[in-house]
Amino acid sequence: MRKILMAIAYDGTAYHGWARQDGTKTVAGTIDRAVSELTGEDVMISGASRTDAGVHALMNMAVLETESKIPAEKFAGALNVRLPEDITIRWSKEADPSFSMREAKFFKTYRYSILNSSFRDPTKRLYTYQVTYELDIERMRDAAKPLVGEHDFKSFCSAHTEAKTTVRIIHSIEIEKNAETVNIRVSGYGFLYNMVRIIVGTLIEAGRGRLDPKDVKDILEACDRTKAGPTVPPEGLTLEFMEILP
Amino acid sequence: MRKILMAIAYDGTAYHGWARQDGTKTVAGTIDRAVSELTGEDVMISGASRTDAGVHALMNMAVLETESKIPAEKFAGALNVRLPEDITIRWSKEADPSFSMREAKFFKTYRYSILNSSFRDPTKRLYTYQVTYELDIERMRDAAKPLVGEHDFKSFCSAHTEAKTTVRIIHSIEIEKNAETVNIRVSGYGFLYNMVRIIVGTLIEAGRGRLDPKDVKDILEACDRTKAGPTVPPEGLTLEFMEILP
Repeated sequence: MRKILMAIAYDGTAYHGWARQDGTKTVAGTIDRAVSELTGEDVMISGASRTDAGVHALMNMAVLETESKIPAEKFAGALNVRLPEDITIRWSKEADPSFSMREAKFFKTYRYSILNSSFRDPTKRLYTYQVTYELDIERMRDAAKPLVGEHDFKSFCSAHTEAKTTVRIIHSIEIEKNAETVNIRVSGYGFLYNMVRIIVGTLIEAGRGRLDPKDVKDILEACDRTKAGPTVPPEGLTLEFMEILP
Repeated sequence: MRKILMAIAYDGTAYHGWARQDGTKTVAGTIDRAVSELTGEDVMISGASRTDAGVHALMNMAVLETESKIPAEKFAGALNVRLPEDITIRWSKEADPSFSMREAKFFKTYRYSILNSSFRDPTKRLYTYQVTYELDIERMRDAAKPLVGEHDFKSFCSAHTEAKTTVRIIHSIEIEKNAETVNIRVSGYGFLYNMVRIIVGTLIEAGRGRLDPKDVKDILEACDRTKAGPTVPPEGLTLEFMEILP
């Protein structure tokens, strides 16, 4: 059995998320079918990140087990002609037969895009979250600082988590404003369920003046989901970059 | 009969263009129905620019004739709750009863967005045209210069035009590159059918080295559509700004 590693980009708008679900259109299920068409095998690719419905990716990863003789690099092109326009395989390559997606460690960057404007631009509605209050970027940066590093992120995690531990490491949080778009990039080594969306919801509370950046440390220490800000909607979120750690 | 002037933004992806057509979903037809729901009148709004299928607008204008007593400024909000998410009325105001959309003169800016990258980003496919050849922006700017001013744009006009004259004035062509996005903004006082898309197709030929910027003057003077570049696809085009001239 060979293992083929693939980097995948998709527009999540039309999908009920990454993970296979009976009777719904999902990213993984759509790629599975394209692989079946190509190789004749019944496959279930294994993804690095199970993004939610409406969340986009410029780079997610998946591994495919196959007995096909197709050269590893050719999978990307051969699958792209069988995939809809909103999913693209960026590249494919041979993975070591011992590679396990479940055991692999990743460095990931998520981008959350906010449209900070009173005008709801219809051409951006599927890729940004509109905030009409004026956001103070410096306050948002101050609020982000205490989150960087290794912490228990229980306050920033959906109550529905099944994670064994809620301790995670955030490598960096970068916030930039370009015209009316505010991009928040959160990088780290694994994230809890809804963690980025709750962090962004909390930073918005700081940016619009409803939360003092000084209080973020207390929110972290409370280990209580109700202390942090709301979970912002999925469409602003894009899994932008991902790298397998040695 | 009152006249209400409206500024309208839309994502053209799901529409067969601006203009009403029986049996198809159009931007004007969709707004007509929202007005009928609001005022009970059977209306046909009159638009400033009949954008093609797939073309977007951040600002198109339309005028509505109504006997309704609703304050002019309230139309925007009242229609927005009746419109789908991909159409937004930005503002509405009372127009002079003598105002005629057909006779009005406009200053317009169109933006054409090119994704100059070998990676087809699925989250940008509905709003950009992908060009994989590396584009030389300085060559594109040189090629654009002879087009600015008053010229006969017959070479840059679809053969299907019904225009009486093909002379038009281009006020400016601005080209900027931001990461892998190239934005071309063409401003002027009225455009021929497909004019912006043919200009952009020609500038791309220059940018990828297949056309010498010096030849653009000859293309203009030939008054022959076959001499100019191809018509680029609609999804990269956005009617960005529009102003009524006194």
